[in-house]
Amino acid sequence: MTHFELSPLNQDLHDALVHKIKLKTKPQGALGQLEAIALQVGCIQQTLTPTLINPAMLVFAGDHGIAQSGVSPYPQAVTAQMVLNFLAGGAAINVFCRQVGMQLLVIDAGVNHTFANEMGLIPAKMGLGTANFLHAPAMRMDVCHAAITKGADIAKKQLSRGSNVLGIGEMGIGNTSSASCLMSVLTSVPIAQCVGRGTGLDDVGLANKTLILSQAIAYHKLNADDPYLVLATFGGFEIAMMVGAMLAAAEQKAVLMIDGFIATAAILVASKIQPMILEYCIFAHRSDERPHQALLDYLRVKPLLDIGLRLGEGTGVALAYPLVQGAVNFLNEMASFESAGISKRVDA
Amino acid sequence: MTHFELSPLNQDLHDALVHKIKLKTKPQGALGQLEAIALQVGCIQQTLTPTLINPAMLVFAGDHGIAQSGVSPYPQAVTAQMVLNFLAGGAAINVFCRQVGMQLLVIDAGVNHTFANEMGLIPAKMGLGTANFLHAPAMRMDVCHAAITKGADIAKKQLSRGSNVLGIGEMGIGNTSSASCLMSVLTSVPIAQCVGRGTGLDDVGLANKTLILSQAIAYHKLNADDPYLVLATFGGFEIAMMVGAMLAAAEQKAVLMIDGFIATAAILVASKIQPMILEYCIFAHRSDERPHQALLDYLRVKPLLDIGLRLGEGTGVALAYPLVQGAVNFLNEMASFESAGISKRVDA
Repeated sequence: MTHFELSPLNQDLHDALVHKIKLKTKPQGALGQLEAIALQVGCIQQTLTPTLINPAMLVFAGDHGIAQSGVSPYPQAVTAQMVLNFLAGGAAINVFCRQVGMQLLVIDAGVNHTFANEMGLIPAKMGLGTANFLHAPAMRMDVCHAAITKGADIAKKQLSRGSNVLGIGEMGIGNTSSASCLMSVLTSVPIAQCVGRGTGLDDVGLANKTLILSQAIAYHKLNADDPYLVLATFGGFEIAMMVGAMLAAAEQKAVLMIDGFIATAAILVASKIQPMILEYCIFAHRSDERPHQALLDYLRVKPLLDIGLRLGEGTGVALAYPLVQGAVNFLNEMASFESAGISKRVDA
Repeated sequence: MTHFELSPLNQDLHDALVHKIKLKTKPQGALGQLEAIALQVGCIQQTLTPTLINPAMLVFAGDHGIAQSGVSPYPQAVTAQMVLNFLAGGAAINVFCRQVGMQLLVIDAGVNHTFANEMGLIPAKMGLGTANFLHAPAMRMDVCHAAITKGADIAKKQLSRGSNVLGIGEMGIGNTSSASCLMSVLTSVPIAQCVGRGTGLDDVGLANKTLILSQAIAYHKLNADDPYLVLATFGGFEIAMMVGAMLAAAEQKAVLMIDGFIATAAILVASKIQPMILEYCIFAHRSDERPHQALLDYLRVKPLLDIGLRLGEGTGVALAYPLVQGAVNFLNEMASFESAGISKRVDA
């Protein structure tokens, strides 16, 4: 079992960063959330001149036994097909990563398909999909811990290549069901309020999904005390690996960008293991997946985008990344009132 | 007086664009507002493969007589100082335009300062600031029409250089006061609900600004019938020029990106002249300036960003521009279900 040693966000430069932001040629606070991000990234990197180096998007793919219970309108085969689409460069996340200059890494965390030696796929298969958690834990505890460790190793390897900002995304038919159960048990919000339409269930499909997940929750009778047990019970392989990657990234003081509902469920698990992780996170967007807002509220975080995305893959991260660049850039490049010869407020 | 001949958005390719978007390898609607923008830009450009060419940000700067009445915590001199900051490359809009690859054009629409032959400043001065509209119209009607024509000429010149997307921003101490009055008269919303803190008024300052603007509204007793008269009465030179630039851009079927509260007040005026203009607009962000939400609601538009910006200069446009790029890119670059060999919905 991998232990993670997270530090609280170092605040040594907090006041100096606030002061630097205050002197920029703009009304105070006029850059809104970008100012908070500039401060956060400066504190994470312990510098008044932060930089974003070799940003990388880690997309973990895995299959879910619960998909056999009709919780998604798409067949399980789509997970593997989409992995091949990622590798061919044709998915939304490919387009957006190319646009914003993020390196894309695709990890097979446990897809129910035996890939040939696919160019570019990072092999980390924990199995051919999880067990159906309707009647059994999704994975054994030792497998869960191994997945966390594997995810951590993948993140650390990327950080060792010089990346200091990691986006975390996923692909897995059925994984909103895992995320909903993780949310319900770990936040004590009733499961019905944690369920959404996923890839596009209609009303009957949504009611069916809610019923099935209610049965799963009732069957396992877990409480929030042991996040590892909750993760092993409901989690996908890709979610466990995301938890490990997130914890390792924060441990090594990377900037961590969190995508939508499933990635937020992973950070919820990670925050139950190490609450300090949230200080290293930038939340990319509010997903259209219904329970995401409540989950963000629970974590007391405000994401950058709210444009109706509900695709996963890390697409929200890639689309929000230019805003984080903007935060770093204004901190580094804007003139100060003094250097630009701008008059101060009349009442200042 | 310049007459503008706008066409309604050509819908010939509407169904073909919807179909193309529908075939992309993602659940339907999963890219949220980006899908609507892909459709809109495709219709504007009349193609299934739209492109964004030489995007340009036009920042119009002007001074306002009302600034003498204590409606801003900053002295009027800041307008000219910030223009020099733009020209030196040190303002937020410089940073963000550089980041996203937008060309920045700074226009002196009527700053209360005689600039030397400043490198890069586009001269279009209509006067050394407007008259104080507390007791007189801000400008004569013929000057207002000349400013509209000048703004149109500047936009057309940029379009003739190959730009097909224009962002419209502004700088002018006191111009939230103009925008508030334009909004109140043209939307019939009481002035008190159209006033915000601008560059950062405290409660007393806000109450004083509201009182002064109420007096101005009561003095002029205008109704919404004649948008030109309302514009000449309350508008800044830069706002009149923005109206002209916006109308010319839409006339020539450019994609038009609208910044914050003042730019939205300008598009309100433009929409009273030619309602079809809204079909060519993408609204960049919801400003933290309080009345902006009500103005966006009045126009029935939903902006892309909501991150607490209240800086103007076009900063919201530059920060939102990568999302528009993302919309165009996914339309052009994503694989289709068929080309990628992805299974369709079980119920499809």
